[in-house]
Amino acid sequence: MALEELQREVDKWTAQFTPQYWQAHEILARLMEETGELAREVNHLYGPKKKKDSEDKRDLGDEMADVIFTLMCLANSKNINLDDAWKKMMEKCCKRDSERYKKREDLV
Amino acid sequence: MALEELQREVDKWTAQFTPQYWQAHEILARLMEETGELAREVNHLYGPKKKKDSEDKRDLGDEMADVIFTLMCLANSKNINLDDAWKKMMEKCCKRDSERYKKREDLV
Amino acid sequence: MALEELQREVDKWTAQFTPQYWQAHEILARLMEETGELAREVNHLYGPKKKKDSEDKRDLGDEMADVIFTLMCLANSKNINLDDAWKKMMEKCCKRDSERYKKREDLV
Amino acid sequence: MALEELQREVDKWTAQFTPQYWQAHEILARLMEETGELAREVNHLYGPKKKKDSEDKRDLGDEMADVIFTLMCLANSKNINLDDAWKKMMEKCCKRDSERYKKREDLV
Repeated sequence: MALEELQREVDKWTAQFTPQYWQAHEILARLMEETGELAREVNHLYGPKKKKDSEDKRDLGDEMADVIFTLMCLANSKNINLDDAWKKMMEKCCKRDSERYKKREDLV
Repeated sequence: MALEELQREVDKWTAQFTPQYWQAHEILARLMEETGELAREVNHLYGPKKKKDSEDKRDLGDEMADVIFTLMCLANSKNINLDDAWKKMMEKCCKRDSERYKKREDLV
Repeated sequence: MALEELQREVDKWTAQFTPQYWQAHEILARLMEETGELAREVNHLYGPKKKKDSEDKRDLGDEMADVIFTLMCLANSKNINLDDAWKKMMEKCCKRDSERYKKREDLV
Repeated sequence: MALEELQREVDKWTAQFTPQYWQAHEILARLMEETGELAREVNHLYGPKKKKDSEDKRDLGDEMADVIFTLMCLANSKNINLDDAWKKMMEKCCKRDSERYKKREDLV
């Protein structure tokens, strides 16, 4: 119920606005904007445009939270239970990737 | 602790691989790929390329779970606590947006 | 030679910097940032956050030029001739899509 | 007139379909999809998932051409002249970045 809890939190907060949620394509455009800001931050922190270490981790987390919030809006607007989707993915993921990448030698 | 729980789940699963996490820019490229697949799904469901209703919601959730998984990898690789980031965002969000969009008239 | 001309223009301009081009993943992160700004502009112009008509088209073009510039940097850094890629795509495109979307009735 | 030429080529090709162009948000979703495929290719070529050298450059160019095509569709659908936008950007760019990055020492 981890993600469902956050989805309810988002739903409660957005309930004061009308429309409560934008159209799917509009939320998607917002997602592009938010992932773009995350990308800029990654370039600042680990790429060609350096920033100070002190503000690093906090800012990256901020951008990631914005991305997750936007995803929650899309999920809520379409009545998608992200915990169900998460469980399904973790099961699929376990099968798909287990042969695909190099494993630690001490585990082989 | 909602997101931290999932972050631990991801960390446990990825612990079998080496390297456990890719470089930040590589994870970011993967995020672009996953959000691209989500976008394709949105265009299928609500845009010019229609698909059948039966498979709709499930697929969209699948793509969203992949995006969240990728974000968790980035967060874990940089020791970011997403619950902290989430709380901080919700507090900021409450202040910033409260004056910005149209509110429901029955709440005004 | 349409795109090659612009690629040379970019190469001439960037030649004054060192390194002349960032790493591929870094340019890709910049591309995410630039497409994110384009997405924000689309949401402003045609989505839930309206702006004035007078500044619309110009701004959208600005963001698109930034995206193209970033692509040119990636192409130049990897010695890719975009005119060749363009021609190849137009030929493939002509075959693939000709059966896929609804055609104008007066052309059928 | 470099980009305008390609825009006309796209317009001629798409003129056979109805609607000739999708809605802006739909094209934007397609752009996310195409940049996502470009990102996957970059990860294949220069990231954790290696492919053979022989197919590299060709594939990257293919994905870039798809991104440019999608941009041209958006530009055409909104009557944007990309050459004008390009010129404007190059002028702005020359001023903005000239102080910002490290220059080659033999040019200083």
